[in-house]
Amino acid sequence: MTAFVRDEWYVAAYGREVGRELLGRTVLGEPILLYRTEDGRPVAMSERCVHRRFPLSQAPSRLDGDRVVCGYHGFTYGTDGGCVSVPGQQRIPRTARLKTYPVVEQDSFVWIWIGDREPGDKLPPRAPWMDSPDYTVVSGMEPIDSDYGLLVDNLMDLSHETYLHGGYIGTPEVAETPITTEVDDAAGIVYVSRHMDDAECPPFYAKSTGVEGRITRWQDVEYHAPGLYLLHSRVAPVGSPGPNPDGSDPHAFHVEVVYGITPSTEKTTYDFWAVARDFALDDQDITEFLRTNNHTVVMQDVVALNVLQKSLDTEKAGYQELSVNIDTGGLAARRILARLAQTGAEQPAAPAR
Amino acid sequence: MTAFVRDEWYVAAYGREVGRELLGRTVLGEPILLYRTEDGRPVAMSERCVHRRFPLSQAPSRLDGDRVVCGYHGFTYGTDGGCVSVPGQQRIPRTARLKTYPVVEQDSFVWIWIGDREPGDKLPPRAPWMDSPDYTVVSGMEPIDSDYGLLVDNLMDLSHETYLHGGYIGTPEVAETPITTEVDDAAGIVYVSRHMDDAECPPFYAKSTGVEGRITRWQDVEYHAPGLYLLHSRVAPVGSPGPNPDGSDPHAFHVEVVYGITPSTEKTTYDFWAVARDFALDDQDITEFLRTNNHTVVMQDVVALNVLQKSLDTEKAGYQELSVNIDTGGLAARRILARLAQTGAEQPAAPAR
Amino acid sequence: MTAFVRDEWYVAAYGREVGRELLGRTVLGEPILLYRTEDGRPVAMSERCVHRRFPLSQAPSRLDGDRVVCGYHGFTYGTDGGCVSVPGQQRIPRTARLKTYPVVEQDSFVWIWIGDREPGDKLPPRAPWMDSPDYTVVSGMEPIDSDYGLLVDNLMDLSHETYLHGGYIGTPEVAETPITTEVDDAAGIVYVSRHMDDAECPPFYAKSTGVEGRITRWQDVEYHAPGLYLLHSRVAPVGSPGPNPDGSDPHAFHVEVVYGITPSTEKTTYDFWAVARDFALDDQDITEFLRTNNHTVVMQDVVALNVLQKSLDTEKAGYQELSVNIDTGGLAARRILARLAQTGAEQPAAPAR
Repeated sequence: MTAFVRDEWYVAAYGREVGRELLGRTVLGEPILLYRTEDGRPVAMSERCVHRRFPLSQAPSRLDGDRVVCGYHGFTYGTDGGCVSVPGQQRIPRTARLKTYPVVEQDSFVWIWIGDREPGDKLPPRAPWMDSPDYTVVSGMEPIDSDYGLLVDNLMDLSHETYLHGGYIGTPEVAETPITTEVDDAAGIVYVSRHMDDAECPPFYAKSTGVEGRITRWQDVEYHAPGLYLLHSRVAPVGSPGPNPDGSDPHAFHVEVVYGITPSTEKTTYDFWAVARDFALDDQDITEFLRTNNHTVVMQDVVALNVLQKSLDTEKAGYQELSVNIDTGGLAARRILARLAQTGAEQPAAPAR
Repeated sequence: MTAFVRDEWYVAAYGREVGRELLGRTVLGEPILLYRTEDGRPVAMSERCVHRRFPLSQAPSRLDGDRVVCGYHGFTYGTDGGCVSVPGQQRIPRTARLKTYPVVEQDSFVWIWIGDREPGDKLPPRAPWMDSPDYTVVSGMEPIDSDYGLLVDNLMDLSHETYLHGGYIGTPEVAETPITTEVDDAAGIVYVSRHMDDAECPPFYAKSTGVEGRITRWQDVEYHAPGLYLLHSRVAPVGSPGPNPDGSDPHAFHVEVVYGITPSTEKTTYDFWAVARDFALDDQDITEFLRTNNHTVVMQDVVALNVLQKSLDTEKAGYQELSVNIDTGGLAARRILARLAQTGAEQPAAPAR
Repeated sequence: MTAFVRDEWYVAAYGREVGRELLGRTVLGEPILLYRTEDGRPVAMSERCVHRRFPLSQAPSRLDGDRVVCGYHGFTYGTDGGCVSVPGQQRIPRTARLKTYPVVEQDSFVWIWIGDREPGDKLPPRAPWMDSPDYTVVSGMEPIDSDYGLLVDNLMDLSHETYLHGGYIGTPEVAETPITTEVDDAAGIVYVSRHMDDAECPPFYAKSTGVEGRITRWQDVEYHAPGLYLLHSRVAPVGSPGPNPDGSDPHAFHVEVVYGITPSTEKTTYDFWAVARDFALDDQDITEFLRTNNHTVVMQDVVALNVLQKSLDTEKAGYQELSVNIDTGGLAARRILARLAQTGAEQPAAPAR
C-alpha cells in the first residue's frame, strides 16, 4: 500500500458539490464534513460528533443557518468547529470542539489541507484551465476501490492508452514512442513527455478537432505529488508550424487533462477528472461527445484498477513487479511519494488548529 | 465493544415465533435452536449437530415429533439434547448430546438463560403489560448491525427523540428537560426520569389519545441490565389531576414501552420492541397507527445505529467520546454492564447442564 | 482448514472449457491462465503479468495467435511463458517470464500439476468412462464456498444421501447399511463399499433404468487423494445374476460417478461432477433427466457445504466433532491428505520449470 502523504493539499470536492447540503468525504482516512456558509464560503471540519461519534453528514443531521446540528442528540457546531449547543444543559464543555481543516477554493476545486502542521504560505498547485474563459471543461469524479498509488502508476505511464483505451485515445504510436522523464525533487514534480511526430489520430481527437489524416501529438505530463496531475496534450496536423517563441500556438489544438488524485482510505481513492479544451468552445455536441467519451475512458481505468487491486489482495507478501523504460515516470513518482510520506512522519507535529 | 454478560436471562424470541418450525437464533455468540414440543413447551438447545457441526435450523433438518433430525446425516436428538439415533449403527456414543438451555415463557417472550451456572431461583424480569387484558400491544423484532451497547446508549438517553425522531415522538421539551437518574447497583437497575409539566403533544400521542393542546408528559425509564428496558410513559392534558395515592391514575393515558435487548454477536443485536397502551383497547385504527408509527421510529434507530457502528469501525483505537448530563443514565448502565461482565468472568463456571 | 497437497495433478477444467478465449482459474491459491493453441494444445501459465500483476484472463487482455497480450500495457507472452514484446523498447528483460504449468488432457479433463517438483512419470489418475463410446455422460462444474475437505467428507460418507438427497438418490437403506473401508496408503487411495442386497429404488434410478420394484444396489467408492473421486454404482433387480468372473455384468445397470475435487482458495473449491452410464446411451430424455436431476443433487450439496462453512467460521477454535462408523472412509481420507500435505512441505523444492 502506498503511504499517505500528510501536510499537503488535496482536492476534497468540486466547488459545485459544496453547498447548503452537508457533504461527507473521507480524505487520508479522516472523515470530513463539507458545506458552504450562507455567504458562500466553503468550510471543512471533522465529520464525527464529539458526543457519541455520530456521522454529521448523515440525515437527520442538518444545517441551521451556518451551524451544523447533529441528527442524533442535537449537538450544534459553528463554522469554527466550536460546539454552541448541548441538549439538556446550558454549559458547553470546553473540549466540545470539532477539528477544522484549512480550505482553499481555487480552479473550481475545493482543496483541503490534511496534516499536523499549518499550511502557512503554501497554496495548492494550480490548474487554471478549470475556470478560464478561454477553455471549455467537462469533468466528473469517480471513486476507485484501489490504493491511490495504482492511479498514479496508471496516469504516469500513458503507454497503457494503446491497450486499455484502444479505439478511444490509444493508438500504436503511444506505446511505441519513447518517453523523456525529468524530476524536480525539490518541488516534488515529475515531468514525462512523449512527442509523436507522425501518428494516427484517435477517434477522441479526430471527432472533436475535425482534423483528418495523421497528426503531431504531444503528451506532456506534469505530476505535482501527491494530489494533482496535469497532462498538456497538443494535437496538430502533420506539417503544421510548431509553437511560437512567445508560447502562442495558433495552429494546434490543446487539451488540458487535469486529475485530482485524492487518497480516501488505504484502498479507496477519489478520481477527480477533467478535460479542458481551447477549441470549439461553444460547440455543445463536442462538449457532450468529450464528456461521454472521457467518462468511458475513465471508467476503463476504474474497472482495471478495481480488478488489479483485487488481484493484488490475493498476492503473497513480497510479490515481484518488473519495471521497464515506460515506468521511469511512475517509479520517480513513487520515490517522491515515499520521501514525502517519510518526511511527514519524521517531523514533529504542531498542534492542529 | 460492550462485553457480554453471561449467567443472565435474555429474550430469545416472542412466544409466537416458537412453534413447530425449527428456529435458529444466535444469542451471546451461541447458536441456539428453538422449537415447541407437541404439548406446547418451548425448548432450546445447541443449534449445531455433534457430528459435523451442521446447523440444525437449516433445511432439510426437521422435526420428527418432538425430535430434531439433522438434515445432513440424520443424527436425531430428543428434547433433552440427547442423541437417539445415529445412521448406520445401533450404538449411540455417550458424548452425542447437545447442550440445552433453560427456557422460561413469560410475558409473551421466550427467555433463555445463557451462562455457565444454573439460574436457580433467578427468574427473568417482568413486563406484565405484554399479555395483560388491560393493555393492547403492538410489537416486533428488528435485527441491528451494531454492538448491543449502542442500543442501550440509545434507549437510556431519550433526548435523541427530539432530533432522530422529530415529528414522531420527539418535541423540543424532551431534549430541554433535565433528567434525574437513580441506580440500584445491587439489583442492576438504572432509573431515569424526565417529567415535562407543559409540553407540546407529539403526533404519536395526539392521534392515539385524542388529546388536544399541551400535555404533561412523564418518561420513567427502568433498565434491568442487561436485557430488559421499560419506559413508563404517562400523558395527560395540562392541568389534569395526578395519580392517586393508591397508584390508580384515571385521568392519564399510559403507554408501556418494552424492549428486549439481546446481544447476538459482537456487532449484531436483536431489538425486540413493544408498545402496550391502556386506552382505546379495541380501536383497530389506533392499533394500526401505533404499529406503523412505532415501527418507523424503531427503524430510525436501527438505521442510525447501523450507520454509527460502521462509523465507529473506521475510528482509530482509543477514540474519544464526550459525555454530558443527558448521558448519566447511559453511563450508569455501562458501568453496571461492565461490572456484571467482569463478575461473570471471575466466577468459576459450574458445568452446564 | 484442510491443508493443500502440492506436487499433485488437479482437474483445472473440462477440455471443452479450454479454447480460444482466455480462461482464469485459481488452483491451490495460484492464479492460472488456460487457453488452447491454434493447433489444439491446452496450455497453462501464471495469470498475472510480470509487469504490474494485471490479471491476464481479464479483458481487454486477449490472444494474438498463440500469444497472450496483457490488456493493461501490452506485455506479450508465448506459450512457454516467455515475454516476447514489451511496449516502448526492443530489449526484453531476461526475467520477463511467466511460470508455466504441466498440463495433461485426459478423460475429457484438463489436468494441471501444481507443485515445486516436476511430475516426471506420474500421470493423473484415470476416469476412462468420461470419453468412452460405451458410456453417455452428463457433467458440470459448480464452485463451492467451502474448504475442499468438506467436499471430501461429503463424498466419502454417502449415508448423507438418505437425508440431504432424500427423494432423489437417497433411501433409508443407504444410511442403514454398514460400510467396509479399505485404505491403500502407498497409492493414496481409500475404498468404501456399501452393498445393499434388497433396497428401495430411488426415483433417480427407477426413472433412468426402467427397473420396477426392489433392487440390489452397490456403491463402491474409490477416492484417489487428493483430486479424483470415483463412485462405481451398480443397480440390478433383486434376484438378478451377479457379475461374471471375467468382470462382465450384463444383468446390471452401471453408473460411474466422477468428481474432480480441486481446491481453489482456502475456502473455495471447484466441484467438477459427472455421471456416466452404460445404458440407454442414445436416449435424450434420460440424458436430460439425469442432467437435471444430478445438478439438483449437486446443488443440494453445494448449498449444504456453503452453509456448513459459514457455520464453522463462527465456531470457536478447537470446536469438537464426533465421528462414528460411517466416517471411517472420510477419516482415512483426512489422514492421507494430512500425510501428503506434510510430505510435500518437508521435501526440498526443485526449481519450478
